[in-house]
Amino acid sequence: MSRPIAVIGGTGPTGMGLALRWARAGEDVVIGSRDPVRAQEAAEKICQEAGRERARGAENAVAVAETDLVVLTVPLTGHAALLKQLKPAFRAGTILIDTTVPLAATIGGRATRTVSLWEGSAAEQAAELVPEGVQVVAAFQNISAELLRSERPLDCDVIVCSDHAPARQAASALVEKIPGVRALNGGKLENARIVEQLTALLITLNINYGIHDAGIRITGLPDKG
Amino acid sequence: MSRPIAVIGGTGPTGMGLALRWARAGEDVVIGSRDPVRAQEAAEKICQEAGRERARGAENAVAVAETDLVVLTVPLTGHAALLKQLKPAFRAGTILIDTTVPLAATIGGRATRTVSLWEGSAAEQAAELVPEGVQVVAAFQNISAELLRSERPLDCDVIVCSDHAPARQAASALVEKIPGVRALNGGKLENARIVEQLTALLITLNINYGIHDAGIRITGLPDKG
Repeated sequence: MSRPIAVIGGTGPTGMGLALRWARAGEDVVIGSRDPVRAQEAAEKICQEAGRERARGAENAVAVAETDLVVLTVPLTGHAALLKQLKPAFRAGTILIDTTVPLAATIGGRATRTVSLWEGSAAEQAAELVPEGVQVVAAFQNISAELLRSERPLDCDVIVCSDHAPARQAASALVEKIPGVRALNGGKLENARIVEQLTALLITLNINYGIHDAGIRITGLPDKG
Repeated sequence: MSRPIAVIGGTGPTGMGLALRWARAGEDVVIGSRDPVRAQEAAEKICQEAGRERARGAENAVAVAETDLVVLTVPLTGHAALLKQLKPAFRAGTILIDTTVPLAATIGGRATRTVSLWEGSAAEQAAELVPEGVQVVAAFQNISAELLRSERPLDCDVIVCSDHAPARQAASALVEKIPGVRALNGGKLENARIVEQLTALLITLNINYGIHDAGIRITGLPDKG
């Protein structure tokens, strides 16, 4: 029996998109929200769209306490406060996948710029706020939420960064449950600084080319055996 | 008659690689170096490797004064000083393509990290140091020098950033003279901050996958007509 994936802030566009893709792939998803009623409504929508009964809703802390695989999809403005609030709910050994991008838009600036965080990145901010024994992984920052939520096929890489190799591997396996997506070992969590900022550049490219789904592929890698 | 491309710091790996690819594509290249004898030797090597008499050597300031298409390929440690020195040599209307990446390795740190520049990026530092009327474009930061220098085909995108649209277009045309490379409009020069840092992530990927040539492709773009 596979453990469920808790998607915190799961009623937002990235959360809904990831939940949809995982539900379609046959994974069990718990959509977390401040409001358990909204969480349940979102879960029902995901079940419908996915055509599979793979999603349910719960209050954020309840969702976190249910599993050891947690994905954080909240805007930067709620990031630190939510992690402090969830701190007692985490199980030891939980893998927390942080998808947050510190876009300047979250504080009224441009989506083509980021704000600097003292810790270096949102993921490193998360690593300071989770209880000991929770392992933070940064991933999914560069995938378009709109694309995730759609029927369109995916075609991009996800750079996975963590200071804990087993957590990075587990998160990478989760990434690759989503068809069309390749997980790449981006090394230490500090490299999330670069991956997070790359999203702002992808937004510039979206604007310049009138598209919505710019993503990245890394070239020069050996083909998989 | 097409204007020659001056490659400043052209005896280094990136400069030699770009010179080789442009010479092969039939462009005239002037390799600049502090030492005109070394510049000439490098140019002869490029002519041999390219199988075309398309390169010659000159002292850096002489090379800059000869054209209005200048490519800067120096390590960060020499970047500001060289630009100050070259300032009187620039023609009005010159397009300066800066390829510099502020890797921490240039000050004894890691190649997987960058240093922060007050201006935000090496390209923005360049923009402060060139005479008025010289238009700075950031490009080529993400292509492996080793790959450029080799016989292997290229397969990557080059993000081109500038505050001057005509300069960005001219630079993009130059980028696309190199087979296998697509130029993308990366918007303003400030976005070079992200593109420069991306190189440090590509170096991490090179290390993690035992390769030398990691590059990027942007997905989600419409096919060219």
